[in-house]
Amino acid sequence: MSGPNVIAYRPSREDYAWTFGGAAPVMKVRPGDVLELWTDDCFTSLVRSTHDLASEKIVFPFLNPQTGPFFVEGAEPGDTLALHFVSIEPSRDWGVSTTFPLFGALTSTTRTVTLQDPLPEVVWVYEVDRQRRTVRYEARRGHFSVELPLEPMHGTVGVAPPNLEVRSPLVPDSHGGNLDTPEMRAGTTCYLGVNVEGALFSIGDGHYRQGEGETCGVAVEGAMDTVLVVDLIKGRSTPWPRLEDDRSIMCAGSARPLEDAFRIAHGDLVRWLGEELGLDVLDAYQLVTQISESPIANVCDPNYTVVAKAPKRHLPGLSAYDGARSRLLEIAAAYRG
Amino acid sequence: MSGPNVIAYRPSREDYAWTFGGAAPVMKVRPGDVLELWTDDCFTSLVRSTHDLASEKIVFPFLNPQTGPFFVEGAEPGDTLALHFVSIEPSRDWGVSTTFPLFGALTSTTRTVTLQDPLPEVVWVYEVDRQRRTVRYEARRGHFSVELPLEPMHGTVGVAPPNLEVRSPLVPDSHGGNLDTPEMRAGTTCYLGVNVEGALFSIGDGHYRQGEGETCGVAVEGAMDTVLVVDLIKGRSTPWPRLEDDRSIMCAGSARPLEDAFRIAHGDLVRWLGEELGLDVLDAYQLVTQISESPIANVCDPNYTVVAKAPKRHLPGLSAYDGARSRLLEIAAAYRG
Amino acid sequence: MSGPNVIAYRPSREDYAWTFGGAAPVMKVRPGDVLELWTDDCFTSLVRSTHDLASEKIVFPFLNPQTGPFFVEGAEPGDTLALHFVSIEPSRDWGVSTTFPLFGALTSTTRTVTLQDPLPEVVWVYEVDRQRRTVRYEARRGHFSVELPLEPMHGTVGVAPPNLEVRSPLVPDSHGGNLDTPEMRAGTTCYLGVNVEGALFSIGDGHYRQGEGETCGVAVEGAMDTVLVVDLIKGRSTPWPRLEDDRSIMCAGSARPLEDAFRIAHGDLVRWLGEELGLDVLDAYQLVTQISESPIANVCDPNYTVVAKAPKRHLPGLSAYDGARSRLLEIAAAYRG
Amino acid sequence: MSGPNVIAYRPSREDYAWTFGGAAPVMKVRPGDVLELWTDDCFTSLVRSTHDLASEKIVFPFLNPQTGPFFVEGAEPGDTLALHFVSIEPSRDWGVSTTFPLFGALTSTTRTVTLQDPLPEVVWVYEVDRQRRTVRYEARRGHFSVELPLEPMHGTVGVAPPNLEVRSPLVPDSHGGNLDTPEMRAGTTCYLGVNVEGALFSIGDGHYRQGEGETCGVAVEGAMDTVLVVDLIKGRSTPWPRLEDDRSIMCAGSARPLEDAFRIAHGDLVRWLGEELGLDVLDAYQLVTQISESPIANVCDPNYTVVAKAPKRHLPGLSAYDGARSRLLEIAAAYRG
Repeated sequence: MSGPNVIAYRPSREDYAWTFGGAAPVMKVRPGDVLELWTDDCFTSLVRSTHDLASEKIVFPFLNPQTGPFFVEGAEPGDTLALHFVSIEPSRDWGVSTTFPLFGALTSTTRTVTLQDPLPEVVWVYEVDRQRRTVRYEARRGHFSVELPLEPMHGTVGVAPPNLEVRSPLVPDSHGGNLDTPEMRAGTTCYLGVNVEGALFSIGDGHYRQGEGETCGVAVEGAMDTVLVVDLIKGRSTPWPRLEDDRSIMCAGSARPLEDAFRIAHGDLVRWLGEELGLDVLDAYQLVTQISESPIANVCDPNYTVVAKAPKRHLPGLSAYDGARSRLLEIAAAYRG
Repeated sequence: MSGPNVIAYRPSREDYAWTFGGAAPVMKVRPGDVLELWTDDCFTSLVRSTHDLASEKIVFPFLNPQTGPFFVEGAEPGDTLALHFVSIEPSRDWGVSTTFPLFGALTSTTRTVTLQDPLPEVVWVYEVDRQRRTVRYEARRGHFSVELPLEPMHGTVGVAPPNLEVRSPLVPDSHGGNLDTPEMRAGTTCYLGVNVEGALFSIGDGHYRQGEGETCGVAVEGAMDTVLVVDLIKGRSTPWPRLEDDRSIMCAGSARPLEDAFRIAHGDLVRWLGEELGLDVLDAYQLVTQISESPIANVCDPNYTVVAKAPKRHLPGLSAYDGARSRLLEIAAAYRG
Repeated sequence: MSGPNVIAYRPSREDYAWTFGGAAPVMKVRPGDVLELWTDDCFTSLVRSTHDLASEKIVFPFLNPQTGPFFVEGAEPGDTLALHFVSIEPSRDWGVSTTFPLFGALTSTTRTVTLQDPLPEVVWVYEVDRQRRTVRYEARRGHFSVELPLEPMHGTVGVAPPNLEVRSPLVPDSHGGNLDTPEMRAGTTCYLGVNVEGALFSIGDGHYRQGEGETCGVAVEGAMDTVLVVDLIKGRSTPWPRLEDDRSIMCAGSARPLEDAFRIAHGDLVRWLGEELGLDVLDAYQLVTQISESPIANVCDPNYTVVAKAPKRHLPGLSAYDGARSRLLEIAAAYRG
Repeated sequence: MSGPNVIAYRPSREDYAWTFGGAAPVMKVRPGDVLELWTDDCFTSLVRSTHDLASEKIVFPFLNPQTGPFFVEGAEPGDTLALHFVSIEPSRDWGVSTTFPLFGALTSTTRTVTLQDPLPEVVWVYEVDRQRRTVRYEARRGHFSVELPLEPMHGTVGVAPPNLEVRSPLVPDSHGGNLDTPEMRAGTTCYLGVNVEGALFSIGDGHYRQGEGETCGVAVEGAMDTVLVVDLIKGRSTPWPRLEDDRSIMCAGSARPLEDAFRIAHGDLVRWLGEELGLDVLDAYQLVTQISESPIANVCDPNYTVVAKAPKRHLPGLSAYDGARSRLLEIAAAYRG
């Protein structure tokens, strides 16, 4: 038996996509293909030192560039796209974070309008130590510093949205997009409902690490080398992004106010458990009530995101999407050799 | 050296408190005292089988009875009360959960009003196995069942509120109250700002386990045998409930919409790290952004609650409240013998 | 036939009530009584010039003093209290407004926490011209000034809350309280559900005028001479404050987020129209959809308030609470002579 | 002097636009042109009787068709488009409303997820009497009916959005769109910031009347004959939709939660008054606090909308956009002859 089909792709700046939907595909891929991708950081590498202010370097809408979109052969509305992240690794030895005027959870914004002055724009540069698997935080004022674990992930993973819409890569919604959840790490499988022919997925916004909620709105941002496997689940729809790893199944809801993100995520988890385990809806509601973990993903993006997690050890007999993840793990293993 | 002063107290039904504030203290205690307490379940033991509907058994306001309040000698407004939970153990071999009409995250409520019919009221009884440290979930329809880990905690811990107010024990706010966070477990120290002379704290609402968010509004409810140590930090105020365990320091914010609970919790964590580590406010904001864990506690109570956690391993040099927890751990060790 | 029973009452400072619930009644009154009351301004007359900063003059909880509470003979839980405002007139020739740190709709607050600096605290004093029925706005910087219509109203009207609670007079909720709606003017009848024996109503927080939403959190505040008639509707409950004037019936919902205040108000209007007109719930929903006016009352208090208004001209045959307002208008006419 | 240039345009079904942004312009127009337009109803005329269920007749995304977009010669990003509505008149003698599953303010939705059953789908047909200027409401159950004033308006008016986005015509945002405010009536001038060359504006969603908030999500929907004048204000930007009529200037904010829509609208009104009257920001904040009217526009669309109104009689000296409306009124008068 031959190994998986491997496609390597590193976009040039002119290849970046700036939207979900509305961008021409960069290539066609097939279910089972392994993609070796490079993603630029959310600032297109223009914020490199504490003197580089994002508000000066970035011209809207050229923020959060996407690698893709990829046209998945055979994908049609009503199907589910599965993306399995084999590895997500920093492609540089530095990352960067910053406050950004009127963006973040602990500032007024263009929506939560106040008449107060914006917070100052301050940049933090993080040194990456790949051997130690750390990034180094250093206070800009005073002398506090600490090594934090390197925990690479993608903030942005999505498909073209429904209803003819074209959305900014800053937006998380039912099509995925800028979910900004640390759960989108190597080893995670992401399920996304297909809205248009070919699905047209893209990824970007690598984070070397972030806290839950991404409080100031900007993680430790960095370019990534990422390997993922593409698969397609025909004839089964997925209403909101779902994730699966060795430990848990998860649903990601994105909305404002934040309680609606919670309601979407936990409502979808109730439905999903109902489908997979044959549980009555109130029985599933009860089970979710007692077992869910509910980390917040972001409270800064145009929609806020909550993840509802159910540990598999509490779900005997569950085989999500008829075991779709098994096939992806096999391909990942074959790729690794 | 003598051991700690130990006080055992098991309230009768007529001793229950039904409010935070406005209830006469059941006794005076001193900093350093160890309290062995019994708390009834939130339904005052009236929901015992799948035939007992809470909506029929309970007459408002006689829901969520509190054990207390306790008058802490020397406690004055501007101080901080520290309560350290030595142990929280089920006092029964069964717990109970239920849907409750117009209460919970995935139903309309008396605030999130819709014209739809309420969900049916269904009761689940959980068998507790203290040896195996489990509770057993059984679906009411169909045959699914699973053992879940016993993870006892108190949903409700608080002091008398400020501004002459008297609040229902269903309400979480700056005085604590019905936070419904699984972090309130044995081993956790809870810090609460004192608003009135004597602090007047009480506890209740034992949960044998709950998921984050307490989605349907009702955990696995049960009576508890709880041991806690009382301490007082003079001359230092605490704006919102804070928690500490071996692994993390935490802030609990309660408000609606849920993003305001997030803002309160993470804003308080930023301030707290600033105070403890001497960090500039933007440096603390940045650090919180990259290290916080942000579990949701409840999305069902009159205010929703979010917890902001900072792992201590990322906070070298931190000794919260000048090491107040050390003294509590010593007393707990002396109590255990 | 004799005229109505008229009771005049002007509280001294030590007579003020600082809560809804929990305060001893200042007197007993009977249904049909006319009360001539004086209410102090929300700052207890301590902010009188542009040099008087509320943050320096006011010590919590001594803000928003209430005149009352009044014990209404015969009032029991399940009844409805009707208060008809015969006249609301400034008792002074000046009013005052101010920004207040971390309070108001266009600033961060103690709940909508940000790390930005608070807005400056600035005071505006308004000259009242009773002949012209105006208040004069003068910009603090520059030379803009304008006469605005005098439109006196009470920000705060309420009864003791349910469930043993005691609430700050800054809070609007189902018991009324700090609704801050301009609809609470002379000529309006206010219906409040009775939660405790005697109802224990009080009024305060006179506004010489305010915009809808009370954007900065502080209206043109001023002491008032107010005449109202008390009545009692036995055996009929009222879930949320309702108002009636010559033109409209209205429901006031208070909650966060603001859409829940909308849902409460419009949901109650749907139910009320259903009761009064015998409409099916979906028919009432449809009618409310096409006729309601939906002014915002406040977006600054601990709960936000929305009013749902239905013009009577679109409601042929309606006689709210079996014409309760007619009796009140008769007493008001008899009082006026 | 010659009269205005008048362009009549009635789209066929294949000419409808289904998005803001992303649709090719149907024609070019010039500042000063008068457009006589026909707009279909939001259901593309497919819901005509109480037996026509929208959920069966409509296939997404073919809901809320737009007449346009029109390319305005000379319009560039940073300019302001002014649309003055000369007349908006029903083109039929019937209108229609309906409940729609999981849509509306008093039901759970796809965002405010609950596990309750949806409300039934019920249709109301309204007879239009153009002589009497009324629409007739008739209850579906029972015998209540009432004539309501005909008050025609457009629910949807907007331009192409910024940041390369393409939005559904159901969405209100900074580009206008589905604001659903009754203020968009004949006599109103609407100012919209231009985001793309040509502005690409369109209109649709005629309402024969609606209450504020559009509670059930569907007004009295109907096809319209509408006359508007187009103008362009070069070199002046407009951040959010603004409106002006003879009585008031207004700002429309759209967001979730509803308080953010309030903050946007009132924050923009503060800024606008500051620009137009030279007021300091806090002076403008104070003035808005005392004079604003704050009707809710919709609490059903993907963003909720609030309007902040300032009566011109309280704003001596104001001439918005240097009197842009005067020129539009002149053209309207010339058109009428």
